[in-house]
Amino acid sequence: MQVAVVGGGAWGTTVAAMLAARADVVLWAREDEVVGAVNARHENTMFLPGVDLPENLRATAEIEEAVHGRDVVIMAVPAQYVRSVGSALVGLLPPAVPVVSLTKGIEQQTLLRPSEVLAEVLSAKSEQVIGVLCGPNLAREIAAGEPSATVIAMADELRAAELQRLLTNEHFRVYVSTDVVGCEIGGAVKNVIAIAAGMADGLGFGWNSRAALMTRGLAELARLGVALGGDPLTFLGLAGSGDLVATCCSPLSRNRSLGVELGRGRSLEEVMADKRAVVEGVATAPGVLALADRAGVEMPIGAEVVAVLRRERTPLEALAQLMGRAPGSELHGLTRQRPT
Amino acid sequence: MQVAVVGGGAWGTTVAAMLAARADVVLWAREDEVVGAVNARHENTMFLPGVDLPENLRATAEIEEAVHGRDVVIMAVPAQYVRSVGSALVGLLPPAVPVVSLTKGIEQQTLLRPSEVLAEVLSAKSEQVIGVLCGPNLAREIAAGEPSATVIAMADELRAAELQRLLTNEHFRVYVSTDVVGCEIGGAVKNVIAIAAGMADGLGFGWNSRAALMTRGLAELARLGVALGGDPLTFLGLAGSGDLVATCCSPLSRNRSLGVELGRGRSLEEVMADKRAVVEGVATAPGVLALADRAGVEMPIGAEVVAVLRRERTPLEALAQLMGRAPGSELHGLTRQRPT
Repeated sequence: MQVAVVGGGAWGTTVAAMLAARADVVLWAREDEVVGAVNARHENTMFLPGVDLPENLRATAEIEEAVHGRDVVIMAVPAQYVRSVGSALVGLLPPAVPVVSLTKGIEQQTLLRPSEVLAEVLSAKSEQVIGVLCGPNLAREIAAGEPSATVIAMADELRAAELQRLLTNEHFRVYVSTDVVGCEIGGAVKNVIAIAAGMADGLGFGWNSRAALMTRGLAELARLGVALGGDPLTFLGLAGSGDLVATCCSPLSRNRSLGVELGRGRSLEEVMADKRAVVEGVATAPGVLALADRAGVEMPIGAEVVAVLRRERTPLEALAQLMGRAPGSELHGLTRQRPT
Repeated sequence: MQVAVVGGGAWGTTVAAMLAARADVVLWAREDEVVGAVNARHENTMFLPGVDLPENLRATAEIEEAVHGRDVVIMAVPAQYVRSVGSALVGLLPPAVPVVSLTKGIEQQTLLRPSEVLAEVLSAKSEQVIGVLCGPNLAREIAAGEPSATVIAMADELRAAELQRLLTNEHFRVYVSTDVVGCEIGGAVKNVIAIAAGMADGLGFGWNSRAALMTRGLAELARLGVALGGDPLTFLGLAGSGDLVATCCSPLSRNRSLGVELGRGRSLEEVMADKRAVVEGVATAPGVLALADRAGVEMPIGAEVVAVLRRERTPLEALAQLMGRAPGSELHGLTRQRPT
């Protein structure tokens, strides 16, 4: 198999490295530093420093070269860059070549999911072969060979099963789903909930509070996903609860870390100035909220995260609002629990 | 309101202390040390050392004195003692007095849930007023005034709503449910999953693996609960996902801590010798597995935990079995994800 991975961040690089054990893989990266270091030193010094990459993994800054003649294209770019990078692929991919998005976010201007942006941009390609890979996937842990499980979702199930065989290895178990919407909403919203969970942690809240917050987060994530056409059961699985828990708990999660810093009293500007990699939840939070508004779904945690990012509330005010004086109807509609 | 709390462990003491702010509360404890310290020093030196208890909270070792004339009885004894302690209450409680169980486990000999044991023992009492309180409730955090949310479940909804008003305070939000079965199964099974999560932690597995394990744990917990008549949505809520996450993640969780020690290579005997308080998951795990067998439900994580507790497998073998070579059908039936 000939695979292109488009995007040289930590996760794209990790997936490219895993695949290089069984396929011919080219990694496209925007940054010359990444391309040079991967080719010369077999290391992504910028986004995955310290991890040895396979010698047969090649990198290029030429996107046409990267995707030419490939059997599969894996898109690993930040949500706000899917359109511009995807546009560079127009005319380069035969209709049957599947495109798998690793992106977890929402395009701010259009409120489209990454797979929808790709379908719009690559209009010659059937949506049936545009899929997503999502689940608890902390790049550094997977790069270190930690056992992990994930989901590939694509409308064309046979194609998804082929990709499952390509991606599965001893440490990385891949399950097949056809629920692209549910998986993508899970992946986008969990980054927003993780900011809230991080704030709770940064403020010193304990595990009861954080577990209650995650549970309410899972409920609002599922409500939105179902309203947009996702399968409710997706949210009980790896792409829902699994990814949410990993992202809300792990010190390796960038979204959670941002929340922790905000909770400790640092400003968004200060925290972002330190970060090299994109923190998806920041741009995605308002998009998720706008999507929810349009769908008539309440997202109290999402709303508080947006209020904090806009400096309309402090993290403590936001959490107090959610935890202490939570309106009783918060879990209503999804569970039989009734409000105070 | 006149309340009796029967059982002077950390959680019973914490609930008694919360209620003492708005009710006349008597705490029954088996241990003279607990009774003496609560009355003389306003501290449960044995099970909740370092936490100041309200001065109006009284303790007694006489169970008849504790429950006589009380409007509500709250049972806070370990799962394997519900029958013997409950038997001491026969003839003492008028039929209308609600009984709320805080116990999270399964009676090993009979495979009955705590509320079922109470219904059997207190046969003069309607099952309608036998309920449970469950959710992410780490006693020490609640004793410290951390914000938390929980569920009271009882067939008699009006009575449950009265208890909700009694129990809710600024930091402790109580939701009402009628799903006693679902809540009790959630509370019992999460202790077993938490042992597995602790083992993964003790073995050095990362958050991807632990999140995948918790997600599979939630799926098997929900499968059993649904098979026994619980509402599937209960498991998305505080009594399911919420309690599971808190118990699997918090260093304050005794079941998780036991798993961590086992994962680090200590024997069950060594670990238990250090512990004063009951670790519910140890006695409950085989009971849960037997219940699942009877209901025709697969519980791969539960089975591995039992195998480790019986020394049939090391924690590493058990986790490798679950994480690395997991049979593809593991999530089938509850999610649309399909196996490798």
